[in-house]
Amino acid sequence: MASSGASAACGRLLSAAEAAAVDEELFESFSVDSLMELAGLSVAAALADAFPLSSHPRPLVVCGPGNNGGDGLVAARHLWHFGYRPTIIYPKRSQKPLFVNLAAQVGALGIPVLDAMPPGADEAHHMLLDCVFGFSFKPGSLRAPFDAILPAMAASTLPLVSVDVPSGWDVDSGPAGGADDLRPAVLISLTAPKACAAHFDGRHYLGGRFVPPAILEKYGFTQPAFSGAEQFVRL
Amino acid sequence: MASSGASAACGRLLSAAEAAAVDEELFESFSVDSLMELAGLSVAAALADAFPLSSHPRPLVVCGPGNNGGDGLVAARHLWHFGYRPTIIYPKRSQKPLFVNLAAQVGALGIPVLDAMPPGADEAHHMLLDCVFGFSFKPGSLRAPFDAILPAMAASTLPLVSVDVPSGWDVDSGPAGGADDLRPAVLISLTAPKACAAHFDGRHYLGGRFVPPAILEKYGFTQPAFSGAEQFVRL
Repeated sequence: MASSGASAACGRLLSAAEAAAVDEELFESFSVDSLMELAGLSVAAALADAFPLSSHPRPLVVCGPGNNGGDGLVAARHLWHFGYRPTIIYPKRSQKPLFVNLAAQVGALGIPVLDAMPPGADEAHHMLLDCVFGFSFKPGSLRAPFDAILPAMAASTLPLVSVDVPSGWDVDSGPAGGADDLRPAVLISLTAPKACAAHFDGRHYLGGRFVPPAILEKYGFTQPAFSGAEQFVRL
Repeated sequence: MASSGASAACGRLLSAAEAAAVDEELFESFSVDSLMELAGLSVAAALADAFPLSSHPRPLVVCGPGNNGGDGLVAARHLWHFGYRPTIIYPKRSQKPLFVNLAAQVGALGIPVLDAMPPGADEAHHMLLDCVFGFSFKPGSLRAPFDAILPAMAASTLPLVSVDVPSGWDVDSGPAGGADDLRPAVLISLTAPKACAAHFDGRHYLGGRFVPPAILEKYGFTQPAFSGAEQFVRL
């Protein structure tokens, strides 16, 4: 499994509580805007590495109500600038100014923003980008409309790219073991792989080239060498 | 001269007033934090293209009091993550929260932040990154300590990389024509080259891969094709 690779490349995997603590420390000196911009850009760049524009120009980007969804909105914007023509599903729109801005930005590019999985989604798109839930998700807290969207994503025949945590998985213990579990082909971990990545055996990227050494040291993880100016690295 | 190349690649050059208007439109839906993050990242990536880490690991980054200086602080942070070991000169520190954050971020990486050009700067560094003034600069408004720092930069033997506008140049009409004019080897224009770029004949990059089509159309400029996920393009 790729899990041992991720552990080896990053020293260790982070629990949900540790991931929250790392985020809190980062936000002591970074704004959410800045880190979300870098996270979303790394997601877009890693997706472009996994699924080249020439063969996979139409991503379907599914955004949840929180920061994982915000990463998806940023990623969709960068993918558009890379030449992709994404469609966004964003049913629960946050009214926080940052998210209102992010929605306006993708709107200005003419990216369609929908409230539900469109009929014929599998035929009209090349991959699903799962930005529904991140490391704050607690199993049992799944509510409408995501209780319908996640099973539809699980049933999709499109290759699935999950951001940070496959949505619906327990951040610490992984998939529940049912037919509705998402089974991503690609996982893009942000900052550090979370514990649930031990249950992932696909193509694994790391984004988040902004962690200061003191945080790496305090939480006992590392990041492998990124190349040149790249914002992602394959684990 | 490269000026005709920049005009050809971007349709036209922007006046100071147009550059300010474009920025104002961008800030209707983008936070300063987000755009400064992308601008600074594009500067770092273009610098790394012009001056590879292996041969030029120690940039001296000179930051002014405004947004051009903020771009420099962001660029220095990314350069550090790329493996460079920058030193920053940042004598007039803004007390705006964004800038206090940016200073804390470079401090957390152990990047030295100085108030003046250090003695022996030319021997200890590989290039000067000029982030002193941008498109808001008005000739005649030069005050201490930059009235001493700009001549010291002009007298330096290090290759000079200017961000958006060579500091001290009139944004519309270019250099004053004196011995103290900065003569950059590299110019990294952001969003679009400004009119003064007509007087620049070195290596020219464009960053700012985030301009929506409506703004390009309204102001009558274009951006050449960026490659892959890259945040800069050579003009």
